[in-house]
Amino acid sequence: MTEPVRAVVLLSGGLDSTTVLALAAAEGRETYALSFRYGQRHEVELASAARQATRFGARAHEVVDLAHLGRLVAAGTSLLRASSEAVPKDSEAAAGEIPSTYVPARNTLFLAYALGWAEVLGAGEIWVGVNAVDYSGYPDCRPQFLAAFERLAAEATRAGVEGKPLHVRAPLISWSKSQIIQAGRAAGVDYADTVSCYDPRVEDDLPRACGRCDSCRLRRDGFTAAGVPDPTRYV
Amino acid sequence: MTEPVRAVVLLSGGLDSTTVLALAAAEGRETYALSFRYGQRHEVELASAARQATRFGARAHEVVDLAHLGRLVAAGTSLLRASSEAVPKDSEAAAGEIPSTYVPARNTLFLAYALGWAEVLGAGEIWVGVNAVDYSGYPDCRPQFLAAFERLAAEATRAGVEGKPLHVRAPLISWSKSQIIQAGRAAGVDYADTVSCYDPRVEDDLPRACGRCDSCRLRRDGFTAAGVPDPTRYV
Repeated sequence: MTEPVRAVVLLSGGLDSTTVLALAAAEGRETYALSFRYGQRHEVELASAARQATRFGARAHEVVDLAHLGRLVAAGTSLLRASSEAVPKDSEAAAGEIPSTYVPARNTLFLAYALGWAEVLGAGEIWVGVNAVDYSGYPDCRPQFLAAFERLAAEATRAGVEGKPLHVRAPLISWSKSQIIQAGRAAGVDYADTVSCYDPRVEDDLPRACGRCDSCRLRRDGFTAAGVPDPTRYV
Repeated sequence: MTEPVRAVVLLSGGLDSTTVLALAAAEGRETYALSFRYGQRHEVELASAARQATRFGARAHEVVDLAHLGRLVAAGTSLLRASSEAVPKDSEAAAGEIPSTYVPARNTLFLAYALGWAEVLGAGEIWVGVNAVDYSGYPDCRPQFLAAFERLAAEATRAGVEGKPLHVRAPLISWSKSQIIQAGRAAGVDYADTVSCYDPRVEDDLPRACGRCDSCRLRRDGFTAAGVPDPTRYV
């Protein structure tokens, strides 16, 4: 019997990353779920991530705390504000207040942690839920970025240099929300139990979505387009 | 007058990274020093990093705590131990105990944080003290790795995609320890105040090196080869 391939799965607990976890499990991967804590609103999402990790039989679920990254961002922006004549006009930092949940070089950092864990585990794959349709504004959600990270990984670790490259799997990259939902349902995802909302509440021990934010809207439109009743619990 | 180029400098407080900071300052860069805390022994080194940041006029010095990474490594290794028949024979994890200071995918992670800070600051360069001569065993100290990270950075951020690529500067990459020491002295480094030892002590408020570890030996040989008296304070 062949050993299963180990896969680190970036898992926020939202619709996309839960679908990715389900797809990795359906392909027979031995999964290791990795989440990140940054900003307060994520606690509800992280609780969902933990439930999904259990549901899909992840061997482990680890949460990396990025609180210190907030300090880095704050230090950067306050330095820039202090010398505002020197602020580069076209950078994101110049566009005004940076929200507390903003993570610079976000997917580079997430993938770097995933690579580190993959190295320890001897995992051959990292699965990510990036989706070029929804996030076309983010450079680090494009196939070119993921390909560049794969090439980096091949140079970064002993396994890579010895010819056992790490593969970045991004099955959703060109799918519509409706396609994602259909694939996820086929792989056993219960979308009632995933959290996509930017401002979720917990009522009666269940996460509830606001139904009004961009993320809620995208998600609801996805269910409509998929011809599937929206199972989301709203406030 | 042209604005100075902003540069994030990875600074451990040791001989190599302090030299790099001095070289960046000598080239007129506006420097932002970035250190990482992982493992206990680093407190003496971090104190040295803070002094060097001040000495060479860094605009800021931030320390990112990687304590949570230790949990990731521990979780990985204990999982592997629990199913030892599944441990890949040729991975680093299989080589026995992993020291608490071991950072998997180390330079990928350090550079990812540096990239994030660079994005916030609008910095055009990251300076690193990697050196292919001393650390030939580490894939992520090779020029190929740094080139791959530059290509990743070009795809990872808005600035990169808009044709303002981030440059990774690694001036020490092919230098001998003796060359590093000579260049650093010319750039104003006081090596008595840098900490390279794996097991440093503090006595009379001054850091002191053990004089026996690999790092101390390499360093002492470097001063000998450079024809310079070793200014290191030993226990």
